[in-house]
Amino acid sequence: MARAVIKVKSAIERMRPLFYPKSVAIVGASDNPAKFGYLRLKCLLDFGYRGAVYPVNPRLAGKEVLGLKCYGSVLDIPDDVDLAYMDVNARTALSVLRECGKKGVKAAIVFAGGFSEVGGEGKKLEDEVRAIAKETGMVILGPNCIGVMNLHADLCTFGINVEPLKMRPLEPGKISLIAQSGTLSISFFLLSIVRGFHPSKIVSSGNEAVVTLTDVLEYLIEDPDTKVIAMYIEAVRDGRRFIELCKSTTKPLVALKAGRSEAGKTAARSHTAAMAGSAEVWDAVCKQVGIIQAESFEELYELSTALASPLRPKGNGVAIVSVLGGPAVIASDACERYGLRVPRLAEESIKRLKQILPPMASVTNPVDTTGSVIEDINMFKEALEVVCQDPNIDMIIAMPHIMHPLLLKTMSKAMVDVARRYEKPIVMVWAVPFGVKVQEFEEAIQVLSRGGVPHCYMPECAAKMLSALLAQAAIERKKAKGS
Amino acid sequence: MARAVIKVKSAIERMRPLFYPKSVAIVGASDNPAKFGYLRLKCLLDFGYRGAVYPVNPRLAGKEVLGLKCYGSVLDIPDDVDLAYMDVNARTALSVLRECGKKGVKAAIVFAGGFSEVGGEGKKLEDEVRAIAKETGMVILGPNCIGVMNLHADLCTFGINVEPLKMRPLEPGKISLIAQSGTLSISFFLLSIVRGFHPSKIVSSGNEAVVTLTDVLEYLIEDPDTKVIAMYIEAVRDGRRFIELCKSTTKPLVALKAGRSEAGKTAARSHTAAMAGSAEVWDAVCKQVGIIQAESFEELYELSTALASPLRPKGNGVAIVSVLGGPAVIASDACERYGLRVPRLAEESIKRLKQILPPMASVTNPVDTTGSVIEDINMFKEALEVVCQDPNIDMIIAMPHIMHPLLLKTMSKAMVDVARRYEKPIVMVWAVPFGVKVQEFEEAIQVLSRGGVPHCYMPECAAKMLSALLAQAAIERKKAKGS
Repeated sequence: MARAVIKVKSAIERMRPLFYPKSVAIVGASDNPAKFGYLRLKCLLDFGYRGAVYPVNPRLAGKEVLGLKCYGSVLDIPDDVDLAYMDVNARTALSVLRECGKKGVKAAIVFAGGFSEVGGEGKKLEDEVRAIAKETGMVILGPNCIGVMNLHADLCTFGINVEPLKMRPLEPGKISLIAQSGTLSISFFLLSIVRGFHPSKIVSSGNEAVVTLTDVLEYLIEDPDTKVIAMYIEAVRDGRRFIELCKSTTKPLVALKAGRSEAGKTAARSHTAAMAGSAEVWDAVCKQVGIIQAESFEELYELSTALASPLRPKGNGVAIVSVLGGPAVIASDACERYGLRVPRLAEESIKRLKQILPPMASVTNPVDTTGSVIEDINMFKEALEVVCQDPNIDMIIAMPHIMHPLLLKTMSKAMVDVARRYEKPIVMVWAVPFGVKVQEFEEAIQVLSRGGVPHCYMPECAAKMLSALLAQAAIERKKAKGS
Repeated sequence: MARAVIKVKSAIERMRPLFYPKSVAIVGASDNPAKFGYLRLKCLLDFGYRGAVYPVNPRLAGKEVLGLKCYGSVLDIPDDVDLAYMDVNARTALSVLRECGKKGVKAAIVFAGGFSEVGGEGKKLEDEVRAIAKETGMVILGPNCIGVMNLHADLCTFGINVEPLKMRPLEPGKISLIAQSGTLSISFFLLSIVRGFHPSKIVSSGNEAVVTLTDVLEYLIEDPDTKVIAMYIEAVRDGRRFIELCKSTTKPLVALKAGRSEAGKTAARSHTAAMAGSAEVWDAVCKQVGIIQAESFEELYELSTALASPLRPKGNGVAIVSVLGGPAVIASDACERYGLRVPRLAEESIKRLKQILPPMASVTNPVDTTGSVIEDINMFKEALEVVCQDPNIDMIIAMPHIMHPLLLKTMSKAMVDVARRYEKPIVMVWAVPFGVKVQEFEEAIQVLSRGGVPHCYMPECAAKMLSALLAQAAIERKKAKGS
């Protein structure tokens, strides 16, 4: 049995004002479109946040900012404030935090840098943030962070320009991210717009004066809407608790650890004051507690989309079903590299494939259906079904022909259908790179993502995704045994 | 001195009808939009090919296809035909090839599969292709290939749906690709549409019955419009000549070798009948002849864009100038991984940066300019110039803030300007993934690509690009010494 962890239940309660605030104050709200205080407010509104929003700026007290009445201080706001976002410099943030304490604000996010990451005086300022949190019981995120996105509450404090992305409405997804980087928090969200697997929650934790990555992890483990927890980590500040929490959950944990090299460690120190430890120790921890490591940020996203599916492979046999010769060869190499097999299909499958596919097709594994699928799309689907029923096969990499726009959506629908009927993980590989502006391609991406079929551009990535599923299956077995 | 290679001069002459045909016949042209024979013709026309085009199909003789008069046979075409494309099955292709011989057609491309890659009877058919080439002197590409793209001649025989991509007019670029995969030929082209560095020529070589990858390599080495040669290789069929040619050129050679694993070798055999050799032997050849190896197909493209610049680093010192904390940490790790250093800047540079940047900025290396560059864009540019003048620095990874659409283009222009004035390679990293639909982002991509500044999404990739430049500098020095 997984070990019990103290306070797990209360994390959801404690952090609620940060993720589900009923009202938000933007302190430092501005009417100048070049300022963060303007962008933050606009982003919050454009994102469709439905709670009360209070701009705060002494210079604009009584005036309107973006159509909302602006207050001179949080103390002037007539109603309760759940969450206050500080778009002011470090020193001002401290005095506003004290006012927030008086006002009974439940949670606060501090954007400003100039705290422990710059050392010296900055460290003292950060100690004050900690003291205020202790005194007032406020949940304080940051400093030096961009805050929280929660698609379940239409909440986004990132200050990004939402309008040109035409990203609303966005259905919330199953993946949540904790990132010790604001840029990467935004980047993860943008990836989700392009690839179609949306996040549930994204938290940028900054210097972690009060709320640490581990605190957020605790929340996300308990959060019923989070099925996969992705992490961009420079340093874990409370290692023992982090380890216990990771051990306690069977939710997939995927992490990209930065600051592995000497150069990276130096960079991390001046970024979020993080003391990145030894790469070897980190690797050992991951192995011990069941964290799957990503090798790049894009991979962190991609592995998360694969792990969001509840399907787990029973073995390491992969079938590659393809119309694409080159990518099938690359995928075969990658499978071997990541510890997967591309076994010969069972004789029964080979016989059936020979009946379905044209004589020129390759019916062992990789299965090459030939380009004739363009003229008969069912052929590819039927081949896929044969392979799904093969006892030698645990997972499938599918590469249907995708150059013909008319077939893109039909093919994606077929893929979702097959993935639902057979309980074997399927990853689809595009030969079209993301960003190619073909309407049908974009629609097909949506069909796959909504249908829960992970997809990627690089055949190597498909193999890596499947190997992560295999690793996660082993982690879950181990945790179920309570080891 | 580099060794002399026989026939180099004649390759340009011999292959001209393949790359610069004055007229093209599409044999198997169809009026059915679902057929390759239709797509091929439409692609050729949409692409803006300016020579004469002759559809050929006995069933449609005398009728019009896509507004062009259709002929019953190549022998019926009243004018000379430089290039004939065969959109017919293997057996028909053979008889048409014989007619082409009679007609005096100079070059032919055979699309059909069903030759040596299926073994048995297919091998005999391929022998016949070879015999016809020998008899007639025709330059035959394929079989089992999609042919040639040459932006210098507005020629594209790939049969892709050009219209929705709105990709015309396309300025030709400096990178040429030889690929033993039709899908990857198209994929490379699509990458170039998204990323902005266009190809010069792309050749899909298929089973290589007559014209081999090495023949195309010989052509591209001589081609004045090709500055970088990218290769997707499953197997080199004429190894000795390949090695001599690689040794003879100082043009950057970048290759992705597939069929490295046992699974991959099997896949390659049924794909293009390629007998992929040992991965170890290949690695040794690359080292010996100066081929830079890519680890994925996307990387093959990305490294090519970096190597297209004539700038070479004099040492391995990298400066990271960034507004993006997380990506800077990742880039630092990646530099170390790829044999680059992120050294402390010279004292003089640190002094100057302190004057330019706000007090919170980090002025050693990585340089973190802080987010204030949003309000003063020149700040970032000036910091970049200081770093370019630093004696400890040979190359730069630049990560300006790119979340604010208004700044995207300005920042990219500044980057191009700095890259031109100082002779140090710069790679720019976006935090925005390709495919995010922001008009200003797309414009900024074009500014950078036209200005010859390589760019990428992943910080790891920037480090890999710079390490490829360093490797190429060493290769060029070695070749100049004639070793």
